[in-house]
Amino acid sequence: FIVEKVVALLQMSKQLSGKRILVTAAGTREPIDPVRYIGNRSSGKMGYAIAQAAAERGAEVILVSGPSGLPTPPGVSVRRVETALQMRDAVLAEFDTVDAVIKAAAVADYRPELAADHKIKKDGETLTVSLIKNPDILLELGQKKKQQILVGFAAETQELLLHARDKLIKKNLDLIIANDVTLPGAGFNVDTNIVKLIDKSGHVEELPQLSKQQIATIVIDKICAMLTKST
Amino acid sequence: FIVEKVVALLQMSKQLSGKRILVTAAGTREPIDPVRYIGNRSSGKMGYAIAQAAAERGAEVILVSGPSGLPTPPGVSVRRVETALQMRDAVLAEFDTVDAVIKAAAVADYRPELAADHKIKKDGETLTVSLIKNPDILLELGQKKKQQILVGFAAETQELLLHARDKLIKKNLDLIIANDVTLPGAGFNVDTNIVKLIDKSGHVEELPQLSKQQIATIVIDKICAMLTKST
Repeated sequence: FIVEKVVALLQMSKQLSGKRILVTAAGTREPIDPVRYIGNRSSGKMGYAIAQAAAERGAEVILVSGPSGLPTPPGVSVRRVETALQMRDAVLAEFDTVDAVIKAAAVADYRPELAADHKIKKDGETLTVSLIKNPDILLELGQKKKQQILVGFAAETQELLLHARDKLIKKNLDLIIANDVTLPGAGFNVDTNIVKLIDKSGHVEELPQLSKQQIATIVIDKICAMLTKST
Repeated sequence: FIVEKVVALLQMSKQLSGKRILVTAAGTREPIDPVRYIGNRSSGKMGYAIAQAAAERGAEVILVSGPSGLPTPPGVSVRRVETALQMRDAVLAEFDTVDAVIKAAAVADYRPELAADHKIKKDGETLTVSLIKNPDILLELGQKKKQQILVGFAAETQELLLHARDKLIKKNLDLIIANDVTLPGAGFNVDTNIVKLIDKSGHVEELPQLSKQQIATIVIDKICAMLTKST
């Protein structure tokens, strides 16, 4: 019995051997000037947990991470970036040769049109920051994808399923992980999350409140199944 | 000789006993919506080091801190805040009863005029964020101060001494710690800093590159001297 369990564990540990998995994590920072930036509340916990779970199954994992205080999971190669444009470059450099991409990063949709070279002095009573749209990395990957399994996240504050399904279709994803960031125990900077998994066929799987490690395991299970089916 | 050293250390350790010192640290976050915010690059390292140095000399230390991953120094009471308005409330609540204030926090000068209740959808090609001025906490403290020693920071990217002297006078400070955040080994998110100390008489003391702990010790030495003189 113990031998069977060990064999099962060893087989699980090799499920992704020979596969290259790209994971993005944490938020980007878009500079307003050398001191100020527009940031977002992603801690990177979900993405780091997924990178770790993929590495534990034997995958070669590349983690493209925005600023985060989290330790690099063992066996994972990290590329550190700050802005959305840097994240796009780092992701596109790897995309052709990977088997799956899990985009857990919270990439800024907009960046300041001009980043000032010097700290803006606080002379005026008001200040207007003009933002322009950042490239939509996930949309671009969805248009380019060939063999790659593409997994996205939808962090919403209202009409969760509607927004998540729209995103899945528009961006040509294989799976989307949707969470309502307004729920206690879900979303940013907490160790748990409450998510729904929606696949290409429209099937919705609602998960209870779980640790981000548990959710990472479930997501990696799904990716294993999809990669096995597609080869 | 050893006995003398120990006696000197013990005396130093009590230099601030009976004194209440308020330290602010880290940056504030000004919400644009539930997900996005305007932040700044302060890690909190300088303020936390000063709080620790003051507590080691026997002071009762209140640390008002923006979001930071740093551990609370032993013996220090922390009040956690997020926005500039919250920081103002927390600082004013303590101000009357403290002997010295060291404002090491990087408080946002501006906040979004309206923080959206829901995550802003990325429909438009551009987005304009209208910011209004936050209250200038240090200026307010300078106007209200009675017995309190008031110490500020000036993080600049150009014309360091000019901007720092202006701030010292305008805000009625007793001491300002000025640093050029563009220098390598200085400013945000590094463990060292290169600062100039400017006092009320206009005297400038240029320090070499030192650890933030070493700078904290020098700042606390100055405050000890000022508190001894003023009583």
